[in-house]
Amino acid sequence: MTTMKAYYLDHAAATPLDATVLAAMQPYLEDEFANPSSLYGTARRTRQAVETARHQVAGLLGAKPTEIVWTSGGTEGDNLAVQGVLRAAGPGAHWVATAIEHDAILGQVEPLRRQGWPATVVPARPNGLVDPAAVQTAITDDTVLVSVMLANNEIGTIQPVAEIAKRLVAVRADRTDRGVKLPLYLHTDATQAANYLDLHVARLGVDLLTLNGSKIYGPKGVGALYVRQGTQLEPLLYGGGQERGRRSGTENVAGVVGLGVALQLVQGTREAEARRLLALRDQAWRAIQAALPDALLNGDLKRRLPNNLNLTIPGTEGEALVLYLDNAGLQASTGSACSTGNLDPSHVLLALGRTAAEANSSLRFTLGRSTTEAAIKHLLAELPPIVQRLREL
Amino acid sequence: MTTMKAYYLDHAAATPLDATVLAAMQPYLEDEFANPSSLYGTARRTRQAVETARHQVAGLLGAKPTEIVWTSGGTEGDNLAVQGVLRAAGPGAHWVATAIEHDAILGQVEPLRRQGWPATVVPARPNGLVDPAAVQTAITDDTVLVSVMLANNEIGTIQPVAEIAKRLVAVRADRTDRGVKLPLYLHTDATQAANYLDLHVARLGVDLLTLNGSKIYGPKGVGALYVRQGTQLEPLLYGGGQERGRRSGTENVAGVVGLGVALQLVQGTREAEARRLLALRDQAWRAIQAALPDALLNGDLKRRLPNNLNLTIPGTEGEALVLYLDNAGLQASTGSACSTGNLDPSHVLLALGRTAAEANSSLRFTLGRSTTEAAIKHLLAELPPIVQRLREL
Repeated sequence: MTTMKAYYLDHAAATPLDATVLAAMQPYLEDEFANPSSLYGTARRTRQAVETARHQVAGLLGAKPTEIVWTSGGTEGDNLAVQGVLRAAGPGAHWVATAIEHDAILGQVEPLRRQGWPATVVPARPNGLVDPAAVQTAITDDTVLVSVMLANNEIGTIQPVAEIAKRLVAVRADRTDRGVKLPLYLHTDATQAANYLDLHVARLGVDLLTLNGSKIYGPKGVGALYVRQGTQLEPLLYGGGQERGRRSGTENVAGVVGLGVALQLVQGTREAEARRLLALRDQAWRAIQAALPDALLNGDLKRRLPNNLNLTIPGTEGEALVLYLDNAGLQASTGSACSTGNLDPSHVLLALGRTAAEANSSLRFTLGRSTTEAAIKHLLAELPPIVQRLREL
Repeated sequence: MTTMKAYYLDHAAATPLDATVLAAMQPYLEDEFANPSSLYGTARRTRQAVETARHQVAGLLGAKPTEIVWTSGGTEGDNLAVQGVLRAAGPGAHWVATAIEHDAILGQVEPLRRQGWPATVVPARPNGLVDPAAVQTAITDDTVLVSVMLANNEIGTIQPVAEIAKRLVAVRADRTDRGVKLPLYLHTDATQAANYLDLHVARLGVDLLTLNGSKIYGPKGVGALYVRQGTQLEPLLYGGGQERGRRSGTENVAGVVGLGVALQLVQGTREAEARRLLALRDQAWRAIQAALPDALLNGDLKRRLPNNLNLTIPGTEGEALVLYLDNAGLQASTGSACSTGNLDPSHVLLALGRTAAEANSSLRFTLGRSTTEAAIKHLLAELPPIVQRLREL
């Protein structure tokens, strides 16, 4: 079994570190180890590397370098965005999230409510898209933050962030007219979107945007948060004052260099790669529909990341599907890999109106850079008999 | 100039990544990229790597693996310890720190005071040591946390943590007698101590202990926080529930593997390395005293890390000394490298009773694994003429 060719179809859980990215990181894992805050020449070089990466990321977002804050990953970015804005606004400030956000957002709702910051969670429609009008309706005069992910990690649906941003412009104008002084910021988690979508922050109309190295063929343990100039943000981590006081801690030099190069690579190839994967993904979906006519697609087929296929296969159990597929040389997921040992049904699928049984019969394939037609052929050969065997058990 | 041999004497600011550590990390920067929370076989391998590293770190601290929480570094560890304990205790809980803590501790004092958690900062004695009785005196019935670093990053003084721990045992017993139910935890930042001192948490008597990869010849951007079982800790980062809910976010697999191996290496050689560096450090200090009789040692000579030499050289300016020494092939520091572009006099030296002028005339050498007699000879040849030149300017 161990010599069998394995096809990795779980790129939403983790991506391999690109060889070019690792090569760019390598000097900073070896000779170039100086603390960027030191004064001598070798430290000026590591400082330069950190700032070059910052320019690179800023350029890809259409942002200023000073608007990029390095983090330790997507979870920290999401927590810094939400807690940073709420703590800066003071207790009682309200925020809005959607029911299909990542746990790094939704996991903050109850603890922050206990700490004095109430939230409204806006439902998603059955197709996995959020209604901009519903988001607007949830906004009160106490709301300082709206958080809507750019693309969902489980079902890949692409949220109407720019449309929500337009509604926020209207809300802000109305507030100004009425003398309501509270700021109102829009945050988007672009962790899963960065490989395939435009991240230009002005076109999106967002004030904060989360990036994560480990989902874009970059290193684990590093990320970035775009914070529009003027955004009132309280740090999560206090200390040496790095990142203009917004995120203290010695910079992960190799990590941020890797993040910069990784983002450049995925953004540089995103349109061609999206077309390539869309064709493979749609081919897979059509063939699965033919072989398993009762399989249900979770989330809208059109407004969806090109690499995502999330299915409910009635009469099966997602975890068993994943283990049988692994045994057949195919790596897939039941949904989010981020909830360790959590066997509760996916909150995203429940939000779409799936039953708990349907949610537990679900399977996520996420294609990526290494995926070719061979993987799809193997998938199409292996999945139907596995489903049949599991249904017979 | 660029071909001149350079001697790195700033190991408290950053350490090179050990080649053995990098070799241990390498598989997790290449083929072994799976998200440890995924279900398939390759993910069980990365999960195993994360847990092996956790056992390794726990073993070196005399702790249980479940008591180790991975972080993104020393700053996050210190912030999770302080904010985690205070937020779990609720607003109004009080904490105690010393005046010579790292900014990752002291930088929390004012923001947390504004958020409802007052602190008392205990002064240090002129020799850079904290008086355990003064720490005890600062404790009130509202105190939930005392934070005292194991060894100081600027002057290397080794604090009487175990003695403070004994006093806390008495305070807790007295509280129990009087029916005061609030917990009282002891945190120590062992970031600088880990290369040379015993980290056994029971012998130290601490409830929380911060480690940082980048100061122990491990990777930047990764650390660990020991959290004694039963400690009430609110997370900083909410999300997928990794680290038993105490610190969400996909694990930095390569990073934690590196941290485990790095800690094993430094703890395995710490006694021999301490003896070796103590001899070199004391040799340097005797020779500098002879050459520059008015040089002052900052901090106690005996209760001090063996690799640290922090001097005030009257009539000079620390930043100029660092730049001239860099030009002469010697990398040193004015104190902490962690306060980016901060030219304020060191809060540690001020806490010892140095004047602002004396603090600004200070220079820190921190020896390390690569330091041999050649570096000390070069230092002794270069420093006196540089001091003379600067005094003549």
